[in-house]
Amino acid sequence: MKDLIDIRDLSPEDLQKLTDTALDIIARPEAYSHLCQGKKLATLFFEPSTRTRLSFEAAMYELGGQVLGFSQANSSSAAKGESVADTARVVECYADIIATRHPLEGAPLVAAINAKIPIINAGDGGHNHPTQTLADLLTIRRRKGRFGHLTIGLCGDLKYGRTVHSLIGAMSRYEGVKFVLISPEELRLPEYVRRDLEQGGIPYEENRDLEDAMPGLDVLYMTRVQRERFASMEEYERLKDSYILTVDKLKNAKPDMCILHPLPRVNEISVLVDSDPRACYFEQALNGKFMRMALILRLLGIPGEKPAQEVPTGEMVPGLRCWNHRCICQVEQELPQRFRRDREGAYRCLYCEALAETE
Amino acid sequence: MKDLIDIRDLSPEDLQKLTDTALDIIARPEAYSHLCQGKKLATLFFEPSTRTRLSFEAAMYELGGQVLGFSQANSSSAAKGESVADTARVVECYADIIATRHPLEGAPLVAAINAKIPIINAGDGGHNHPTQTLADLLTIRRRKGRFGHLTIGLCGDLKYGRTVHSLIGAMSRYEGVKFVLISPEELRLPEYVRRDLEQGGIPYEENRDLEDAMPGLDVLYMTRVQRERFASMEEYERLKDSYILTVDKLKNAKPDMCILHPLPRVNEISVLVDSDPRACYFEQALNGKFMRMALILRLLGIPGEKPAQEVPTGEMVPGLRCWNHRCICQVEQELPQRFRRDREGAYRCLYCEALAETE
Amino acid sequence: MKDLIDIRDLSPEDLQKLTDTALDIIARPEAYSHLCQGKKLATLFFEPSTRTRLSFEAAMYELGGQVLGFSQANSSSAAKGESVADTARVVECYADIIATRHPLEGAPLVAAINAKIPIINAGDGGHNHPTQTLADLLTIRRRKGRFGHLTIGLCGDLKYGRTVHSLIGAMSRYEGVKFVLISPEELRLPEYVRRDLEQGGIPYEENRDLEDAMPGLDVLYMTRVQRERFASMEEYERLKDSYILTVDKLKNAKPDMCILHPLPRVNEISVLVDSDPRACYFEQALNGKFMRMALILRLLGIPGEKPAQEVPTGEMVPGLRCWNHRCICQVEQELPQRFRRDREGAYRCLYCEALAETE
Repeated sequence: MKDLIDIRDLSPEDLQKLTDTALDIIARPEAYSHLCQGKKLATLFFEPSTRTRLSFEAAMYELGGQVLGFSQANSSSAAKGESVADTARVVECYADIIATRHPLEGAPLVAAINAKIPIINAGDGGHNHPTQTLADLLTIRRRKGRFGHLTIGLCGDLKYGRTVHSLIGAMSRYEGVKFVLISPEELRLPEYVRRDLEQGGIPYEENRDLEDAMPGLDVLYMTRVQRERFASMEEYERLKDSYILTVDKLKNAKPDMCILHPLPRVNEISVLVDSDPRACYFEQALNGKFMRMALILRLLGIPGEKPAQEVPTGEMVPGLRCWNHRCICQVEQELPQRFRRDREGAYRCLYCEALAETE
Repeated sequence: MKDLIDIRDLSPEDLQKLTDTALDIIARPEAYSHLCQGKKLATLFFEPSTRTRLSFEAAMYELGGQVLGFSQANSSSAAKGESVADTARVVECYADIIATRHPLEGAPLVAAINAKIPIINAGDGGHNHPTQTLADLLTIRRRKGRFGHLTIGLCGDLKYGRTVHSLIGAMSRYEGVKFVLISPEELRLPEYVRRDLEQGGIPYEENRDLEDAMPGLDVLYMTRVQRERFASMEEYERLKDSYILTVDKLKNAKPDMCILHPLPRVNEISVLVDSDPRACYFEQALNGKFMRMALILRLLGIPGEKPAQEVPTGEMVPGLRCWNHRCICQVEQELPQRFRRDREGAYRCLYCEALAETE
Repeated sequence: MKDLIDIRDLSPEDLQKLTDTALDIIARPEAYSHLCQGKKLATLFFEPSTRTRLSFEAAMYELGGQVLGFSQANSSSAAKGESVADTARVVECYADIIATRHPLEGAPLVAAINAKIPIINAGDGGHNHPTQTLADLLTIRRRKGRFGHLTIGLCGDLKYGRTVHSLIGAMSRYEGVKFVLISPEELRLPEYVRRDLEQGGIPYEENRDLEDAMPGLDVLYMTRVQRERFASMEEYERLKDSYILTVDKLKNAKPDMCILHPLPRVNEISVLVDSDPRACYFEQALNGKFMRMALILRLLGIPGEKPAQEVPTGEMVPGLRCWNHRCICQVEQELPQRFRRDREGAYRCLYCEALAETE
């Protein structure tokens, strides 16, 4: 692993080590405050995200390093039509590690393939956002003391919420984990994710009612339900309040349940819940910084050794191509179409994981 | 005082101490150059202001600290509709102190109420801009050696100019201060500010003519007169030149008068005045940096002790509400309506100071 | 030389010293890593340019200094109509050296005239971009070991390409240099540049065909050919492929030729050329950082002495004025019209070098 592109790049052992490092940083920050002296992080944000960008910047500063970059595409050369590959190769002249967010799926992988320095995916469209999942995981470990034997409720938009999919992917690997999927019909977890759970023998149940599901949960992961996602305004008006967390809905929750939210929230958690000791979403933001510190150290091999410098490159398959219009392969100059086989043997685009189709 | 939201939060003793610190920084910069090592300033600028932002950043760097943040709202989560309170609570995970500018009145106070770290108001709409007044005050002290016994001319837009109102508020507390208000009829100092002067027994006079007022002034504070503020184009054309400072209009000014301007200027001071030794507006920008250094140290309690961590919270008054459409209370999620009584006993909005009205 | 505004401000001796310093930085980076401690670079980019800005920022960080600034005009006071002169005078309160890019020709010179600190021109419209030329020159020196006795091919848009004009200006001063100008008729090198070559006795030839010119070249400088520059779409379609560098077109090139490109490229060099050892454009970006480090040290006088603090001021000539609508003199408040005589005795605008005309 040279880069972090997808949370699945990290094994449970990797996650154990990263959270160990984060806990040590929390315990002894001064021991880490100069480890990145003379190093530079580039934050290449082709679309804005204050929280994520500032978290990376704070992480690097707390390690004694420096930061440069841009916070939106129109202040970058992307406006002049430069490819992601070229940007990565130029920026590796200026920095030691890159954190990048891009509206197109697979763009961070293209950067990783082209740059010799580590690339961290800070969000590629609706595809992956692995450092958010790192924040979620450290929060669960700090609050519950373990990753296994937990009942995890996921509430709201389970269809489009990439953080939900990543968290399921990461937590599925621990023993005794059970998921409770709480969403309106329109926003159910996609069929292929449910199939993964079934094939892995991971127990899950679906529930339309948050209050009904509440008493059994150890963790409640809230996400936003957006109006645009509903078939009709009536449907939205009828359902929206069901997925807003209020003090009232918490009355039958376990006293040590923990409430997560990737933030920003709009109104899906009442402000009155913030003072409940079960609310963890602001400490989740803090934990995100510590995990990013641990990750930067790991990828730079500080202290100790760099992980193996592997980057997946897939294979070229004549006659196949990716038709996902949100994939980086649609716009990147001379980017070869490359594929990987999934668990079921089907070819998927190396960059965005869409199923390959014939040309 | 945990934060600096309004210049009136600072007593004359506070101002004496802050300007003392600034003068010591000027005399012995190397003694201060590492005091903020390991500390981070977040500059959260929801609307752009190069001068103010760069001044804060330079201040923090000259104290040995680091800076992160954003320079306009569309590169921030605000574009996704996040509340000011949530932004403040997340950013306190990443920084030790926040300087924020926001188009809505009261937004920095909302941040201060929600964050445990110090908040500095770097401008909230037309409401307050206390660090500009700190720059003005240090410039007066360095040039005149005192705050009392000065005749201060204020010229231009006295109606909307928030820096004028703040300077009057701060200087009114010193003995022997007299104001000369020089403006067109349309842009007179608001009635409530004049009433404050009268009730406090502070002498002032109004004058439509800058040249006529000039000989008596120890300090001349220029501001911009904007075309949009006039009832008619004819009126503007007839009056505009009267409020532009030229070399010629200075001929009867005292030889040690000092000319201030909050910058940026457009054309209200001729470039030819810049080389006059009485022109202080560029050193005012420099003084702003030194006062921001003194302020950051004070709020972080470096060296020595932090000031008392008080944040005004006002009171809830059933049946009353704030109707000011530029107030943060109109948009912030679940923000309670809160009020404070003014000197005359009337309830005013805690956030923007507008008079409360019945619901 | 207090500033770097135009590559011609640097003599061949200056260039020798700057490249010497850059080579020493490459050899012994740790010897330079603290030389700018406590110094601040302001990057004032009134139009975006990621590559150039990040290169300056990386340069300053690798010297141990700090960076502040803005990356586009709408996050700056320029949006409020502040003059370049005022911006420069304010920013010198906050920084020790300024690198600035501006859409108007001559803006960096106006900053240099007004600020007491050094100004580096990071691009002023289509006029000058001297630090790009510094990157080009270091790349040539590192690859070829010399500046003289080289045949330099310049390919693509030779009419509008400011980097081409600067490189010709800098390289013309070395013995044994010959230029091969490869462009469509529409984009030939301007007549006044060709006249300069002829008057200086510098050999050059023109060629419409890149493959034909290839075998004789020691250096090939590629630039982008933009569609908009052609008289007709047919003409563009007929010609465009001739000026795209492919693996195939390189087959008769010298084995040690070096290929330069100022970047960003769009499609004028095939990605397949990148792995050819003659491709130098990414190391050119790296070399740009080292030259900017050498330049910052030189202008700050670290170590050693500052260069003489001269700024050209030209002369006022009644009855003459500059009519170039892209010149800073068209918008800057109260900026006097000033002129310099060129080699042929004609008056040219001090700021943009356009020929002066009668009022």
